[in-house]
Amino acid sequence: MSQEKRQLHLNLFLMSVGHHAAAWRDPDAHIEEIFDLQYFKWIAQTAERAKLDSLFLADGLATWSTSKSSLQGGLEPFTLLSALAAVTEKIGLIGTVSTTYNAPFHVARRFASLDHLSGGRAGWNIVTSGNEREAQNFGREEHLQHAARYDKAREFLEVATSLWDSWDDDARIADKESGVYVDPDKIREIEHRGEWFSVRGPLNIPRSPQAYPLLVQAGSSEDGKEFAAQYAEAIFTAQQTFQEGRDFYADVKSRLPHYGRTPDDVKILPGISAVIAETESEALDKEAALHALVSPEQGIRQLSSILKVDLAEYPLDGPLPETPPIEEINGHKSRFQLVTDLAHRENLTIRQLIFRLAGGRGHRTFAGTPIQVADQLEEWFTGGAADGFNVMPATLPGGLEDFVNLVVPELQRRGLFRTEYTGNTLREHYGLARPANKFAGQPGISALEDREKFKLSEFN
Amino acid sequence: MSQEKRQLHLNLFLMSVGHHAAAWRDPDAHIEEIFDLQYFKWIAQTAERAKLDSLFLADGLATWSTSKSSLQGGLEPFTLLSALAAVTEKIGLIGTVSTTYNAPFHVARRFASLDHLSGGRAGWNIVTSGNEREAQNFGREEHLQHAARYDKAREFLEVATSLWDSWDDDARIADKESGVYVDPDKIREIEHRGEWFSVRGPLNIPRSPQAYPLLVQAGSSEDGKEFAAQYAEAIFTAQQTFQEGRDFYADVKSRLPHYGRTPDDVKILPGISAVIAETESEALDKEAALHALVSPEQGIRQLSSILKVDLAEYPLDGPLPETPPIEEINGHKSRFQLVTDLAHRENLTIRQLIFRLAGGRGHRTFAGTPIQVADQLEEWFTGGAADGFNVMPATLPGGLEDFVNLVVPELQRRGLFRTEYTGNTLREHYGLARPANKFAGQPGISALEDREKFKLSEFN
Repeated sequence: MSQEKRQLHLNLFLMSVGHHAAAWRDPDAHIEEIFDLQYFKWIAQTAERAKLDSLFLADGLATWSTSKSSLQGGLEPFTLLSALAAVTEKIGLIGTVSTTYNAPFHVARRFASLDHLSGGRAGWNIVTSGNEREAQNFGREEHLQHAARYDKAREFLEVATSLWDSWDDDARIADKESGVYVDPDKIREIEHRGEWFSVRGPLNIPRSPQAYPLLVQAGSSEDGKEFAAQYAEAIFTAQQTFQEGRDFYADVKSRLPHYGRTPDDVKILPGISAVIAETESEALDKEAALHALVSPEQGIRQLSSILKVDLAEYPLDGPLPETPPIEEINGHKSRFQLVTDLAHRENLTIRQLIFRLAGGRGHRTFAGTPIQVADQLEEWFTGGAADGFNVMPATLPGGLEDFVNLVVPELQRRGLFRTEYTGNTLREHYGLARPANKFAGQPGISALEDREKFKLSEFN
Repeated sequence: MSQEKRQLHLNLFLMSVGHHAAAWRDPDAHIEEIFDLQYFKWIAQTAERAKLDSLFLADGLATWSTSKSSLQGGLEPFTLLSALAAVTEKIGLIGTVSTTYNAPFHVARRFASLDHLSGGRAGWNIVTSGNEREAQNFGREEHLQHAARYDKAREFLEVATSLWDSWDDDARIADKESGVYVDPDKIREIEHRGEWFSVRGPLNIPRSPQAYPLLVQAGSSEDGKEFAAQYAEAIFTAQQTFQEGRDFYADVKSRLPHYGRTPDDVKILPGISAVIAETESEALDKEAALHALVSPEQGIRQLSSILKVDLAEYPLDGPLPETPPIEEINGHKSRFQLVTDLAHRENLTIRQLIFRLAGGRGHRTFAGTPIQVADQLEEWFTGGAADGFNVMPATLPGGLEDFVNLVVPELQRRGLFRTEYTGNTLREHYGLARPANKFAGQPGISALEDREKFKLSEFN
């Protein structure tokens, strides 16, 4: 039970009523409260009581479906995370923001604000958005090609990190006596002119407690892994088998030296959606009861949208028909690959595949006792497939209660998970260093004094 | 003291340490806490204890200054308001968002989220951004011309209101038993294709408690007034004299019928930055002590930036030199007009003008006893110059404490201001109606079912 043992990291992947496709129909689901702050406050405080590293909100920029059976429409993540910052003290707050449909100045500023307000607990799950419905909400007919999206994402990160570094940590002086508020030698324009963005800077907020939000990434395509190796500090990934988990882990870690980084600089967290009960058969019954609530029509739509084949034309209890070649997929490539691999490996019918995906949309699902879940986590963690886990309760609030009341204490007994927070910031929870300032020592805006004397609007 | 008397409305215009240009140097200023949520929580709860209608955060999208004396860099308003939603219950939360440098989908969604989370307390101060430094943070060399900005703002409002109306109030069914989550006949695409924006919709969040955030506007130029007459429900305005206040009030109210609106549909709230003390001479001393902390260099810069003349070349105790014609001002036109009018009307030297602007950047300043302040407010309110006030404490926290502890009770004694909240939403506080849905009864997305069957990404 020594605390010197390598510790695993746990992130709560928070979906309003849980991750199972039919979670909203669960008798205990608080479906009437999913726009109510009190509900999310309870969840966040429960995760914090269990000493989880962080909680995370996914996001999309369009309605997902025209189906009457699908839960759709939810709170914008940043708004909710900011509210949760006010009612929690330690847990990290990770929000999804797209690099394809946002301006870097806004994003850099908002994360710096959240990081200040939360005392260094902000994290950014960087996504490139892979849905043409999203494109059409932002003035485009079609969304950008996969590689172009990652190219834009890299430039976005270049701009955002420059903006976060546009103030030295000690640029703000605020000396009432002398009347000096800032040191203009320690604030800089960034003068970025790139293919996708032109941004002058500086940012209009001082450098925050963590300097940058924790940078998180979830794509597992070739582009995604390369992007992650360059920028990500934590990776949320979907791996179905231990072997796939090990391969992915080794693959990403091996890409780090090219960017001057070490294996410890990135924490890899596969998703797991566990249905937990005192006995294995109870857990399987719970899972089956959830599956029974899935509308087949909704499942066919979901699967069709991933595979880009209209499965409604095929028998539900027959095999998967031929799918398009992956080169033609300009959406979530890695999810496409995962689902087709799963179907072929286990020889699943369309109906079986729908149930397998219902639990975690391609993330690993598991039904068992707390000991069995802890065994699974330990195996992956000690076997080189994970640095921690993206915890995806199938239902809420029950699935979270089961995990924090039954699995977390077991992990703590095994000496694998903290019993108290030892740091204050999100990076401290993950054992990551605070970024250095890439512009330290370079000339500041005081050099601009004369040129700019009265071109600024010094009021509002 | 009858509650049937017409009631005035009070909005707290919250600047981190207060509105006076030297507020940060005030001995009581909490300058070390202006990134600390606890500080703003205290302010918001204090305003709520006094039953104020709302609090409001201004915003700009660039650093204001290269001066070492100016307070610069602060929290992004939306992040802060969302956090404050979690620690307040009744007070309205109004944030500034630019229509020039944002996508309508993001903005509509974020306000809907804040409105849900706060139980109907969101308000949007609509600005068009008038600063070329802002343009340069968003990929443009120069900012848009004044009229084009308002044209874009009108289209932005058209899109945003359509998105807020893209769900009927009863579109979300969430019936666990039948498995029906939404009624696709009550959710609509908006298919907007305009000069500035193309947005398909629907919004990915149900219609919120207020339907739209309270729409607030602050520009007082010709374009600004016309825009306000069409859209605004509350107007924050800067008027120096009772006569100017009456003229502005009558002007805006007279423009409403053209848009099918009545005078009660818009509340006009002039700003007032009052320095309050038990006696008038104490109040004047307090104000003078603040003025003495203003750096003349900073004051010259601020004034030069408004007037677009480099005043550093002129004697501080001499008159204002000639200023450019207003046609050449492509920034804050109404502020330019106000400042030149003030200087000429009162024959002020540059130094005197700097002090006059130090208190409220062009808003009306006043030093006096609580009775004198209440008299001023009552005169404007009953005399046809105001429906309420934008309360701008010169310093914080002291200036707010003085206002809520001394002036508010006096207004309550006079029967001019509520002693308890009578409603829950921000619109209810201001006595405004909840917007009807402009698309009610039109066909929904169910008509798209076949066309869209598997084009959506129903996962993330």
